[in-house]
Amino acid sequence: MTKVFFEKRRRGTVTTPLGFLAAGGRAGIKTKKKPDCSLIVSQVPAVAAGTFTTNRAKAWPVLYSMKAIHGPKHRAILASSGNANCFNGPGGKAAVLQSVETLAGLLNVGSEEVLIAQTGLIGVPFPINRFKRNLPKLVKRLSPDGGRAAAKGILTTDLRTKEVALSFYLGRKRVTIGAIAKGAGMVHPNMATMLCFLTTDVKITKRLLRRAVRHAVDDTFNQIAIDNDQSTNDTVLILANGEAGNSTITRVDRRYRLFRDALEEVCRYVAKELVRDGEGVTKVCTIHIAGAKRPTEAEKVARQIGTSMLFKTMLAGADPNWGRLVAAIGASGVDFDPKRLDIAFDGVPVLSHGKLRVTNLPKARRVLAKRECDLTVGLGKGHARAQFITSDLTAKYVLINSSYSS
Amino acid sequence: MTKVFFEKRRRGTVTTPLGFLAAGGRAGIKTKKKPDCSLIVSQVPAVAAGTFTTNRAKAWPVLYSMKAIHGPKHRAILASSGNANCFNGPGGKAAVLQSVETLAGLLNVGSEEVLIAQTGLIGVPFPINRFKRNLPKLVKRLSPDGGRAAAKGILTTDLRTKEVALSFYLGRKRVTIGAIAKGAGMVHPNMATMLCFLTTDVKITKRLLRRAVRHAVDDTFNQIAIDNDQSTNDTVLILANGEAGNSTITRVDRRYRLFRDALEEVCRYVAKELVRDGEGVTKVCTIHIAGAKRPTEAEKVARQIGTSMLFKTMLAGADPNWGRLVAAIGASGVDFDPKRLDIAFDGVPVLSHGKLRVTNLPKARRVLAKRECDLTVGLGKGHARAQFITSDLTAKYVLINSSYSS
Repeated sequence: MTKVFFEKRRRGTVTTPLGFLAAGGRAGIKTKKKPDCSLIVSQVPAVAAGTFTTNRAKAWPVLYSMKAIHGPKHRAILASSGNANCFNGPGGKAAVLQSVETLAGLLNVGSEEVLIAQTGLIGVPFPINRFKRNLPKLVKRLSPDGGRAAAKGILTTDLRTKEVALSFYLGRKRVTIGAIAKGAGMVHPNMATMLCFLTTDVKITKRLLRRAVRHAVDDTFNQIAIDNDQSTNDTVLILANGEAGNSTITRVDRRYRLFRDALEEVCRYVAKELVRDGEGVTKVCTIHIAGAKRPTEAEKVARQIGTSMLFKTMLAGADPNWGRLVAAIGASGVDFDPKRLDIAFDGVPVLSHGKLRVTNLPKARRVLAKRECDLTVGLGKGHARAQFITSDLTAKYVLINSSYSS
Repeated sequence: MTKVFFEKRRRGTVTTPLGFLAAGGRAGIKTKKKPDCSLIVSQVPAVAAGTFTTNRAKAWPVLYSMKAIHGPKHRAILASSGNANCFNGPGGKAAVLQSVETLAGLLNVGSEEVLIAQTGLIGVPFPINRFKRNLPKLVKRLSPDGGRAAAKGILTTDLRTKEVALSFYLGRKRVTIGAIAKGAGMVHPNMATMLCFLTTDVKITKRLLRRAVRHAVDDTFNQIAIDNDQSTNDTVLILANGEAGNSTITRVDRRYRLFRDALEEVCRYVAKELVRDGEGVTKVCTIHIAGAKRPTEAEKVARQIGTSMLFKTMLAGADPNWGRLVAAIGASGVDFDPKRLDIAFDGVPVLSHGKLRVTNLPKARRVLAKRECDLTVGLGKGHARAQFITSDLTAKYVLINSSYSS
């Protein structure tokens, strides 16, 4: 992380950067009277980038936006919750096209300038007529204060909105990045869809925006785990409209890295918020792997620990069970020398160069009893590192995910 | 499976094949008064084969037996529970050597003829002196009826013993395969160690025995999942002593395949028993994937479904949630055409060529409410198949695995 002044505002949101409007509201998808649609609009044409689920069963909005994202300029992100618009036949595809065209007409922009994302039930016909009827209301509500409402419109089983904004200076120009997201908690009755929409007033080329987003997503959203499944609808989208007035970032230089680091900071905050708010989650653990030979090695170990059901139940039980940890590290397939292994919780060593620190176990147990903790594993082989954020696996998670009927 | 008369005896065990003795008892490893050691001995020299955990943190007995298995002849398998003899320093290695040598002396066989397997706590010094003192008692108890006692000596959190024997004819010679196993349920406080010891009186070359065991393990023990972790101690060992009197199996011919299929049948039965008796398990589901292009493709899909926490909680909730299934299939990375997808529970179609069979959902729900069910997924792409056995994920699993202290 480049040393620089970042001003993070937890109250900030997608309308904090200059030149963005947003709205949220009800569009008749959810039967309960809950917000189920959101709209983010840039007042001037913006460049866009995104990353999408690698699940082979992709929802219609994902298939649409994966193509649409290649256009040169974009103006709007339309999102809705309650219906994943996935695996529901050609009607789902038509619903996406009609939604996009209707919205483009209302905003007086080209339909190719609209991106779309949806989350909710799989395999259910999308109520396109009700949705279209409600779009004019949504557009009317667009406002520079609409970020919070937009953050609400995409929620499903989330307990709270996920919003953040961060500002930094490029020369004398203040640049802001804002974000809203919907959690990785699983949704009645489908997968842990993750949606994150980012806005920024930075001036940057589309090529470099894409590069920065991929970098940030790889190091943050792709390094979290609540469960081991993968959604049909996962989508991260960013609009950059240049309203900050900086001279365009066109090269991988100091200014690009400054922006990229700020974007990563925003994504990391959101990623941690997603884990914190995961279904049945009571604890969040950030896993730091150090001393690997290669970054891929460090990532393998971090992911193996972070997705181990035994490690996750161990967190729930607040038990510094280094035996499970050693076995999880070994299960990663990465070679290591037991005599060089270090394990610590919040800096309290449990294993030092392979030797058990019995007297530290009560202290480690107290660390694990906290809502958040850091696990550090040193492999003693090299200098590569990796990070992974995981949650505990609680009986509540199981109850939530086994107690509904489709 | 070759069509042939198999006589399976659920009461059968490792002493059912001719020429085997076994014993079980207490050797002072477990503090509670529970059996914690087992011994299987062939009365004549036998050929041996085995498969071992791929975890990089291998227990001392695994490292030992992986080498010892290459010897031409073996006589005994010594097993114990309560201490994994893993990650406990050079003392653990010495404990293995001393155990093997002491036993070899008592049995009057070469120490290179003894194999060893252990399961239990990781990182605890092995009580070798107590263990050695108790070995003479164990040897004295060796008997042709000792299979049941041996099955008990390796248990940890298992609720019951896992034993089976199966007989078939090679020409006029009756051949028997027996097995005992210890479950994949996780053990205080370490991993889901799986131990399985097989005996057979078939006459076969060491090379073909090894080949048959690998084949059987790949299709059975490697296709089950209770949790997604991997033990430091997993071991499958087989002794074949030739006492059935058949002419030696020396080639991959009809007789070899007959033996191989019988061995697979035994392993499949044991594998299912392991899943049935997994911690907190209330349901067992056998996943059948059909219509894949290649076997590896079918296996990928089967494993993705079988290890999906959302599928496993769905089983617990007895909900025929095809949306989760479609997403899990997609998450496998295997391409498929939604319009050709078939999904059925115990033959009750929920999805036929991509079309939802709404009227069948109540029936499918009744199927899922049973203790055991079959899920069939047809990909409609080719003729390759795969099988995977999984369990539900219950709140009880989480409670068991989070409620102890190390």
